[in-house]
Amino acid sequence: MKIAIAQLNPTIGDISGNAQRILDAARQAAEQGAQLLLTTELSLCGYPPKDLLMQPSFVGAIAQELKSLAQSLPPDLAVLVGAPVLNERSHLNGGKSLHNAAVLLHHGKIQQTFFKRLLPTYDVFDEDRYFEPGKESGWFELTGESNLKIGVTICEDLWNDEEFWGKPTYGVKPLDDLAAQGVDLVVNLSASPFCVGKQQMREAMLRHGAKRCQLPILYANQVGGNDDLLFDGNSFALNQEGNLMMRAASFQPDLVYVTVDESNGDLEPAEIVTLPNCPEAEIWGALVMGVQDYVRKCGFRRVVLGLSGGIDSALVAAIATAALGAENVLAILMPSPYSSDHSISDALQLAENLGIATHALPIQPAMQGFDTVLEPLFADTEPGVAEENIQSRIRGTLLMAISNKFGHLLISTGNKSEMAVGYTTLYGDMNGGLAVIADVPKTWVFAVCRWLNERGWQEWHHDLATPQEVIPQNILDKPPSAELKPGQVDQDSLPPYDELDDILERFIENHESPRAIVAAGHDPAIVEKVVRLVTNAEFKRKQAPPGLKITERAFGTGWRMPIANRWRPSTTHPTEDTPAPPSKPVPTYAPQ
Amino acid sequence: MKIAIAQLNPTIGDISGNAQRILDAARQAAEQGAQLLLTTELSLCGYPPKDLLMQPSFVGAIAQELKSLAQSLPPDLAVLVGAPVLNERSHLNGGKSLHNAAVLLHHGKIQQTFFKRLLPTYDVFDEDRYFEPGKESGWFELTGESNLKIGVTICEDLWNDEEFWGKPTYGVKPLDDLAAQGVDLVVNLSASPFCVGKQQMREAMLRHGAKRCQLPILYANQVGGNDDLLFDGNSFALNQEGNLMMRAASFQPDLVYVTVDESNGDLEPAEIVTLPNCPEAEIWGALVMGVQDYVRKCGFRRVVLGLSGGIDSALVAAIATAALGAENVLAILMPSPYSSDHSISDALQLAENLGIATHALPIQPAMQGFDTVLEPLFADTEPGVAEENIQSRIRGTLLMAISNKFGHLLISTGNKSEMAVGYTTLYGDMNGGLAVIADVPKTWVFAVCRWLNERGWQEWHHDLATPQEVIPQNILDKPPSAELKPGQVDQDSLPPYDELDDILERFIENHESPRAIVAAGHDPAIVEKVVRLVTNAEFKRKQAPPGLKITERAFGTGWRMPIANRWRPSTTHPTEDTPAPPSKPVPTYAPQ
Repeated sequence: MKIAIAQLNPTIGDISGNAQRILDAARQAAEQGAQLLLTTELSLCGYPPKDLLMQPSFVGAIAQELKSLAQSLPPDLAVLVGAPVLNERSHLNGGKSLHNAAVLLHHGKIQQTFFKRLLPTYDVFDEDRYFEPGKESGWFELTGESNLKIGVTICEDLWNDEEFWGKPTYGVKPLDDLAAQGVDLVVNLSASPFCVGKQQMREAMLRHGAKRCQLPILYANQVGGNDDLLFDGNSFALNQEGNLMMRAASFQPDLVYVTVDESNGDLEPAEIVTLPNCPEAEIWGALVMGVQDYVRKCGFRRVVLGLSGGIDSALVAAIATAALGAENVLAILMPSPYSSDHSISDALQLAENLGIATHALPIQPAMQGFDTVLEPLFADTEPGVAEENIQSRIRGTLLMAISNKFGHLLISTGNKSEMAVGYTTLYGDMNGGLAVIADVPKTWVFAVCRWLNERGWQEWHHDLATPQEVIPQNILDKPPSAELKPGQVDQDSLPPYDELDDILERFIENHESPRAIVAAGHDPAIVEKVVRLVTNAEFKRKQAPPGLKITERAFGTGWRMPIANRWRPSTTHPTEDTPAPPSKPVPTYAPQ
Repeated sequence: MKIAIAQLNPTIGDISGNAQRILDAARQAAEQGAQLLLTTELSLCGYPPKDLLMQPSFVGAIAQELKSLAQSLPPDLAVLVGAPVLNERSHLNGGKSLHNAAVLLHHGKIQQTFFKRLLPTYDVFDEDRYFEPGKESGWFELTGESNLKIGVTICEDLWNDEEFWGKPTYGVKPLDDLAAQGVDLVVNLSASPFCVGKQQMREAMLRHGAKRCQLPILYANQVGGNDDLLFDGNSFALNQEGNLMMRAASFQPDLVYVTVDESNGDLEPAEIVTLPNCPEAEIWGALVMGVQDYVRKCGFRRVVLGLSGGIDSALVAAIATAALGAENVLAILMPSPYSSDHSISDALQLAENLGIATHALPIQPAMQGFDTVLEPLFADTEPGVAEENIQSRIRGTLLMAISNKFGHLLISTGNKSEMAVGYTTLYGDMNGGLAVIADVPKTWVFAVCRWLNERGWQEWHHDLATPQEVIPQNILDKPPSAELKPGQVDQDSLPPYDELDDILERFIENHESPRAIVAAGHDPAIVEKVVRLVTNAEFKRKQAPPGLKITERAFGTGWRMPIANRWRPSTTHPTEDTPAPPSKPVPTYAPQ
């Protein structure tokens, strides 16, 4: 039996477009002799559809599209489509009005429907908000064509593995239930978001499950960017021993095939696409895809960004160029009297390396305009943060004016470290429709840029004979500075970035208490300061654009903090910490 | 038996401060001869604590505070404290690591702990993200002091009433379970957020439950503002017949008492505070409290706002004045060459009525500064939205400069209608730490202002002999305008506000499909346009400050929409709508 996996990149809400993507894959799969096509979780509406699920016309349109898709598909190909469906029993028994379902279309009709049982409600996931869990696991067989009993699961259904995690995460175990029902293999429709190292972890976990139950597993994962969430694809198949028999592409749509040998019920070997070879390559691939998809799915073609001569905007410009082509990236240089000479020359060198257009707009006339307007109020005050922020807000306003005038999407360039501690100006450098590297810590910004120069840019452009210094060396070498007053550098206000980033990772991603962070070797005064800065910057993050998620825990959808909040955890507080409630049932993966 | 209800206004995360509030109430209650004190849901950490619940030191500090509070309380008074507690079985059985609990403190110790069973995960609520539901309902008695069996419930536990709602909302019924266990009365620790008409609905629902089960119900509700959520208090008590025997104050902390006649197990009459006498008064009281609490809980004392001479900023200035005192409100007038004369004179008249300070900062010099900077890029273009937005962003930047310089919190003045359709400038008039009237539709802005002039301002200030025209009549009479170009009025771009607001309420709050809205009598072209505007403005709302929630469904925490989204519901689409999944299990309440 030949099974196809359509690793799809749906656009949220584009029901007919997504149906067309499924149909295209189905026609190809049928031509290749497949009997079954797997799609990804909620493939018909895209994942996550969020509160669109509360619009009755949305759910109605999906139900109608399911019926007409069933009739358009090649009749001999069975297709598992992911879609929300009504919970018919909600009116009688209570509970949510929808199920997250896998719908089996075959011979022109809906043949069977399977409900997701484990609904992730942590980190970026809100599935209990919309869906009622399924009560049991189910399987199907393609009667007359094959005797294989195929168990159906959806994403999280396979993530409750007590042996693998050391503890159960839910009370029920769909994989074990299917094994008990005597299925021959298990398929999984997923929309599992990317973070660095996630695929290694997925494969290790499912390998454990496959081997334990002696069941082949076919895992179909969504690909593409939907707002802040990036889906890496990497669909794969494991045989009864848990060995990897197939892997699809990272960060791009794919249509792949696996053959089940019906004599022994196990999989035959198929193509295994290699994974990105380092965390830097993963981050790069994810962010390029994220920019590409956000721009396209929002209906834009071109982007504008401010180029400061610093490393953050340099990396974002490189990502945008790789994503959209140099001709679709406009870089604006906005020097002030406090800008260093090298900030201009470095930015221009970068733009030349990338081949992107630039305009220079010196901001002094606007600064003078504000000075004139504010003179009556500010006359007797010392220049300080207010004046520094005005410079940043002038730049933000200029970039938005260009965006409004010419229809370019403004992308912002702040990194995770500065978003964490609030070293950023709200309504200034935070302006933009998408915060490209908002989840990339500063130390990783440097690492990705070094990798780009050493081999990344060359590997990405298959036609380059040698490595290329795409990020000017001076940008990598000089100390980071916001250049909002003479001689300013980041380290005047912040601890060194390697120290800062380690504290932030422990606090934000690993849920460590300040006391535990001190116990790991950090200076208590610095830990207290960093934690206080993170808490005090909540009001800024509340108003930040979506940022592309690449770590275990990003600011944004998966970080829900009160703003008016008096909690300030202390490094010396005598209370005992309780075990950290993990935001998601995965261990921290340490990138090499 | 005398039972006290502490209607508390906790600050999120202020564990020791909240413990002190409970202690103060307990001492008073003990002096008054009460044997039991009820507090509100999660009273020790404040509701909603959100992702603070994932910080192990936070949960640890609460556990420790519970123990020390038990020892500090008057030993003969039993106190039910709301707190998150560890789910000890999560490591064995899976499930979330916390319970939302009511902890009975008595005689210096934790005597019993009760877990919330129905966890709201809809609208603004995310309880499944953090909490494992309790498996059963429980009760206690104060042995040796009383024979009453007192059943304990937490907020949502009482909201599943199939008869009242016409359908079950959950599979289990805590009130019926307690009745079956033969309890004598039921207490409820709540943190139920306000919306217009909510209290009437709460009382009607619990009246139904009390009568059905022939059980008195004591309902203790949190009061105060926590970011976007407003809690109205209005704690109350119903006797066995469901009659109202006591009601506490609206929008302020209170400590009230109810006596249970142990001979018949029913309640004796106590004081019933009257509710605000119209929706306008409710909205006013809620927003005044919301501003007061956000400013105080964020550590500010004074606010700054832009006064345009329009009705939105007029209402916000009046609310801020009532909340903080005239001396703590600074109003900035920022006329441009397109501002009408009356915009200045109306704003000054309003400021005089309120007694607040003003500064006028004409923005033309800053406009010229931007013109100079942008000249090389914009030379050959027609002036349009880009230039209009620059004016708004200059104003937003000036206000933030004043906020940064003098430490005033900037509050923004946009209403719900314009937030819905995106008739607002991101990084301009949207700037601020709190969006005071972001959930008030424009027609209600007018209604509240008229009410203020006719009787509201007089009723609020108990010392005024006659109604006072606090909002200048000209502000009420003139057509709304953004004044970003000569002669501009809102109705150039938008349908009349009464029509717009009705469409918006149906679409946003009532989950009606565009087709249903047309069927209710609206013009299909206008409905399509409005729905498209709402969808297209999602990127702006993503970056909006928190807005105080006063309707069934506000933008913000309870509105989770994708930005890159191709779904555009049509008025003519032939699909059948499915029944709307309600965002919360309540009917729409129509204000009189």
